[in-house]
Amino acid sequence: MRVEESIMPKANSDEIPAVPLTIEGYSVLHQMMRVRWSAWRQLAAADKSAIVDEAAGVLAAMERDSAGPSALFSLLGHKGDMMFVHFRQSFDELNSTELQLAQLRLADFLEPATSYLSVIELGLYESTIKAYQDLKDRGIEAHSEPWKREIGEVLARQKEAMHPRLFPEMPQHRYVSFYPMDRRRGEARNWYSLPIEERARQMNEHGLIGRRYAGEVRQIITGSIGFDDWEWGVDLFAQDPLTFKKLIYEMRFDEASAKFAEFGPFYTGVHFSAPQLGAFLSGQVPALLS
Amino acid sequence: MRVEESIMPKANSDEIPAVPLTIEGYSVLHQMMRVRWSAWRQLAAADKSAIVDEAAGVLAAMERDSAGPSALFSLLGHKGDMMFVHFRQSFDELNSTELQLAQLRLADFLEPATSYLSVIELGLYESTIKAYQDLKDRGIEAHSEPWKREIGEVLARQKEAMHPRLFPEMPQHRYVSFYPMDRRRGEARNWYSLPIEERARQMNEHGLIGRRYAGEVRQIITGSIGFDDWEWGVDLFAQDPLTFKKLIYEMRFDEASAKFAEFGPFYTGVHFSAPQLGAFLSGQVPALLS
Amino acid sequence: MRVEESIMPKANSDEIPAVPLTIEGYSVLHQMMRVRWSAWRQLAAADKSAIVDEAAGVLAAMERDSAGPSALFSLLGHKGDMMFVHFRQSFDELNSTELQLAQLRLADFLEPATSYLSVIELGLYESTIKAYQDLKDRGIEAHSEPWKREIGEVLARQKEAMHPRLFPEMPQHRYVSFYPMDRRRGEARNWYSLPIEERARQMNEHGLIGRRYAGEVRQIITGSIGFDDWEWGVDLFAQDPLTFKKLIYEMRFDEASAKFAEFGPFYTGVHFSAPQLGAFLSGQVPALLS
Amino acid sequence: MRVEESIMPKANSDEIPAVPLTIEGYSVLHQMMRVRWSAWRQLAAADKSAIVDEAAGVLAAMERDSAGPSALFSLLGHKGDMMFVHFRQSFDELNSTELQLAQLRLADFLEPATSYLSVIELGLYESTIKAYQDLKDRGIEAHSEPWKREIGEVLARQKEAMHPRLFPEMPQHRYVSFYPMDRRRGEARNWYSLPIEERARQMNEHGLIGRRYAGEVRQIITGSIGFDDWEWGVDLFAQDPLTFKKLIYEMRFDEASAKFAEFGPFYTGVHFSAPQLGAFLSGQVPALLS
Amino acid sequence: MRVEESIMPKANSDEIPAVPLTIEGYSVLHQMMRVRWSAWRQLAAADKSAIVDEAAGVLAAMERDSAGPSALFSLLGHKGDMMFVHFRQSFDELNSTELQLAQLRLADFLEPATSYLSVIELGLYESTIKAYQDLKDRGIEAHSEPWKREIGEVLARQKEAMHPRLFPEMPQHRYVSFYPMDRRRGEARNWYSLPIEERARQMNEHGLIGRRYAGEVRQIITGSIGFDDWEWGVDLFAQDPLTFKKLIYEMRFDEASAKFAEFGPFYTGVHFSAPQLGAFLSGQVPALLS
Repeated sequence: MRVEESIMPKANSDEIPAVPLTIEGYSVLHQMMRVRWSAWRQLAAADKSAIVDEAAGVLAAMERDSAGPSALFSLLGHKGDMMFVHFRQSFDELNSTELQLAQLRLADFLEPATSYLSVIELGLYESTIKAYQDLKDRGIEAHSEPWKREIGEVLARQKEAMHPRLFPEMPQHRYVSFYPMDRRRGEARNWYSLPIEERARQMNEHGLIGRRYAGEVRQIITGSIGFDDWEWGVDLFAQDPLTFKKLIYEMRFDEASAKFAEFGPFYTGVHFSAPQLGAFLSGQVPALLS
Repeated sequence: MRVEESIMPKANSDEIPAVPLTIEGYSVLHQMMRVRWSAWRQLAAADKSAIVDEAAGVLAAMERDSAGPSALFSLLGHKGDMMFVHFRQSFDELNSTELQLAQLRLADFLEPATSYLSVIELGLYESTIKAYQDLKDRGIEAHSEPWKREIGEVLARQKEAMHPRLFPEMPQHRYVSFYPMDRRRGEARNWYSLPIEERARQMNEHGLIGRRYAGEVRQIITGSIGFDDWEWGVDLFAQDPLTFKKLIYEMRFDEASAKFAEFGPFYTGVHFSAPQLGAFLSGQVPALLS
Repeated sequence: MRVEESIMPKANSDEIPAVPLTIEGYSVLHQMMRVRWSAWRQLAAADKSAIVDEAAGVLAAMERDSAGPSALFSLLGHKGDMMFVHFRQSFDELNSTELQLAQLRLADFLEPATSYLSVIELGLYESTIKAYQDLKDRGIEAHSEPWKREIGEVLARQKEAMHPRLFPEMPQHRYVSFYPMDRRRGEARNWYSLPIEERARQMNEHGLIGRRYAGEVRQIITGSIGFDDWEWGVDLFAQDPLTFKKLIYEMRFDEASAKFAEFGPFYTGVHFSAPQLGAFLSGQVPALLS
Repeated sequence: MRVEESIMPKANSDEIPAVPLTIEGYSVLHQMMRVRWSAWRQLAAADKSAIVDEAAGVLAAMERDSAGPSALFSLLGHKGDMMFVHFRQSFDELNSTELQLAQLRLADFLEPATSYLSVIELGLYESTIKAYQDLKDRGIEAHSEPWKREIGEVLARQKEAMHPRLFPEMPQHRYVSFYPMDRRRGEARNWYSLPIEERARQMNEHGLIGRRYAGEVRQIITGSIGFDDWEWGVDLFAQDPLTFKKLIYEMRFDEASAKFAEFGPFYTGVHFSAPQLGAFLSGQVPALLS
Repeated sequence: MRVEESIMPKANSDEIPAVPLTIEGYSVLHQMMRVRWSAWRQLAAADKSAIVDEAAGVLAAMERDSAGPSALFSLLGHKGDMMFVHFRQSFDELNSTELQLAQLRLADFLEPATSYLSVIELGLYESTIKAYQDLKDRGIEAHSEPWKREIGEVLARQKEAMHPRLFPEMPQHRYVSFYPMDRRRGEARNWYSLPIEERARQMNEHGLIGRRYAGEVRQIITGSIGFDDWEWGVDLFAQDPLTFKKLIYEMRFDEASAKFAEFGPFYTGVHFSAPQLGAFLSGQVPALLS
């Protein structure tokens, strides 16, 4: 495809719709917080103790909530001191969580630095192309009622089959790398102008790299189009943080990433358990209890 | 159209003017606010109560004002805690509203995070082309007095016919997604260099997607050229926030969006009723009362 | 062959200098301020009264100073609450004004949000081309002493003829839209690489649109190359703010704007008179007294 | 034909993998801090003394820790007053260091301005190409188990041979220049789309310049893909700061830098020894004790 | 040179090195400060007096120091209220100056807004090409020991001849315009990919414009590659600020600027003498005493 061609009205080779199907799971909120260390240090030991007890209790309950768990991270560098990651059943529950945390006495010692709102998402390129092509072969018009019914059935089947990946347990690795990203919509290179088959091919190639790291890294992709400032948010979890660098560096050379991925800021954290909150606030690296 | 052509002096195929007619309704101000939670929590219950009563009273009256209603949202994430959306008859009334809110005792516990100033706008591509072509066929010169009179009549007719969409009631859906956007004026791709017929074709294609979501989402387009930093501000209202993602993702593939749309930050909120202000400030997810 | 040759008409057709002559009038400072509403509301009524009296007195005198007037605006949205616009005879006088305002007791309740420094400017494309061509035809070398003398005479004549536009009265319309802008210096499109005749043609086309709005809008162009971060600052004044949108939208399609204009932030304000300062600070929309 | 084919030599000539091998050493954290001078000056001499003693003791121990040293710098300009550079064995140790420093009484007088998280990295372009080509010639498929085993052996050998460069002593030069950088992933120029042989050639050319400055400057390259917002962070250490300018200016002309390097902010500092902390805080340029 | 050609490996026409020689003089620090006017106004007259006396004494001594003078400016607009410009013999002396100023009682009323670190620099395009070509003609290999010796002699000769321009007195004009800038390293236009002869030609053309303004403006170029975020910082000094606009506007059309210059923020100030500090802080425009 030449430059001029990418400016031509695009035509998916087979005139099937351009939009890949996606299925969604947990609503997710990342909250990056700075600790007001000076104010904290000035507290009497008893006050610290009471504040930690209240917060650790609430956070430990959130950690254990299998219907929508939370996790705590000690962030490296100045972008924040703590990160909370919340998996919930709905945006109302996420809003409830952040309002509840804002009422803790601990909140007087936390300053919101940034946040990210998204939902766990699986893109279904292969099933999409198969379903679109099949419906086309059967002469069923795109977006007609029967088409929508059949697509709805595909989505329902996939959503059920993928349930554990849409509503996962919180990974229990020691390190996290979180970053938002876009697919480029530049003047010459535009992901959204590529035919769906080409996007599927590139995403497949992209996925092959990830699969080579399967034993070392756990990846959770969340979609945020319409919710936050980037299109996707990615969490990587690993026991060795070098894995983040190796995986993302290798991916930087695949076509989907080299040409079309744009990355936001990276947040690197150390996962710890709520009962370790007091240790963290007293200056010790907090542990992840198993 | 190839790259080189877009750099040539553009010529609308029929030499009709390039500017689509628009009609305008309510003046609109979005105000995103952070709550000073620490200061708020330190208030005595009686003070909180008095402050909530004063503010909820003023806001409830604004909500009910059918000549120019307001609405309240609990925002998700760090970009703000509350968003006010005001529909008014004029910029003076908007200014009056913000000055009035700044006098509330509640204002001591709110920090302006950002805002957006715009007016509800309908673009009339199809009527424009028809009217311009008709006037041309009748030999009436563009921008002459008779031309202006006839265009004025088209605008008046449309403004009357579209009155309910220009001065709408505040949508009563549970969720909102607000974002500003531009049409690209890049080096190679420039919306404003396209012939009006091509823009009309793309906007029509764009609108077809929106229409497929008509039952699930209510969209209000506001124009802000000359008022604020982006060209348009868009509010989507829905009962299920996933609709925002599905709609905007699908639109990302249409030509007008894939090639020409540039998006600002997204604000996602939960709509609630003014009498629920106290619940919100005490850490509960506030309800939208019907 | 250079990069831009492949995409745009080359060099100045007649080898006359590329730089259009400009003449300058008032030095101008825009000051955007936030009001510290909480601190203000906590003042006793007598203190408010004394502070308003002091400031309104100083500002009213500035408003009335025909040798260099000031104006006050209530800004819409979070970018600022008040905007001062000062027209002065020199940068020293502007500096004097801002230092004087910083000494007011009111200044304790104002926070500078942003500002813009520029001078009223008229670009003389047509006279420039005529003068340059005439001097060339007479064999007078560009930048020689006789050339400079004759150009100096052109400038002096124009400066006298344009005196009322270089040192204007402060417009007394209800609304203002202020924004800075650049002419693009991109990789493919570069205003400064166009021949002067082509720039003159585009600026003329651009001006024709403005002239159609002459009765509804008053425009003051200020130049800020070498003074502030954009090349120009534009003030539009009108009785109906929709005029700003209509004018700027229409201009967005002319060649000079569509291809070469880059816009900074927009500030929209309501003009009011200094004696209304107390009303403004008590939460009322202040009036423009005539 | 794809976009980049028209502008650059295609695909890896020999179909060997695109990713150069890297080996990693110390985990590194740069912390840029502002001093709250006003608050500091208001302390009684005895308080200053106690605070300096506590902090200088902790920092001096970190300076001397041969298993992972730290260093202190007095920064020039407003970007920060002090910079700490920490070399550690792991991200947990880095986190421990920053939490420990946040507990110092001195921390009440420091504000984090920015930071950078990375690991010391050596890129092995030449060994990579040799190993990839050799394995290919022997018919061993990329990413197969035997391939991974042999690559693992290459890495282990290199890591041992390069140990002193991966876990270096802290350079003892007077000046530092720290900056983050990316390799461009633009629309027309994309480092990650170049064949590995071409990247190796350019990096070799790039390295030749560095080698000419070997006696004057000590360079430590750290990788931060997956950890922080740029791909690499570079520390230059020299006795004469002009060396920074000469080296980086010269590199700006080599192909890898001219076409592909994008630079973040630069931080310039004066290296000093922990026992000089009191001198620094009393307004003297602190010395680097040997 | 066509677009594609600029992407090919560049070859300087004669294979002489690409890097122009530069010579350096004073180390320079610009410090932009905001005055905390509210806090200042609340001081008792005696305190103000003592603080002004202390600071004015220190600053007056710096002004008069012929081995490395400083200057004070009252800035226009919100970017800062005061600017200090320091010329010094080394970065240690600059660091000493900023630490010394931070100890003044006045520093409690100043907030660092921004700063710029650089060294006075002269680029020697013409001598460079002559020397490189001469050495090449004599068969002396670039970067060989004899080559370095001869280049070192050229630099030493130039440095001596240019001493007054490398270590200038502080200009005593009333107005200053300071701005940082880069030479573009874009995808299609890249200063560093041009042959040195072409760069020399453009810089010469650029310099001719400057020379036409020689009587009206004094220009000091500082280099900041490796020290701060832009490549150069430029100070213009003049008795009439319109000169800044005219000079920079005219330069915007020369090839080096139109195609390759990228500009940072502009700071415009009024030069004043240290003994006028009290006048300035009491709200009067301070004078430049001669």
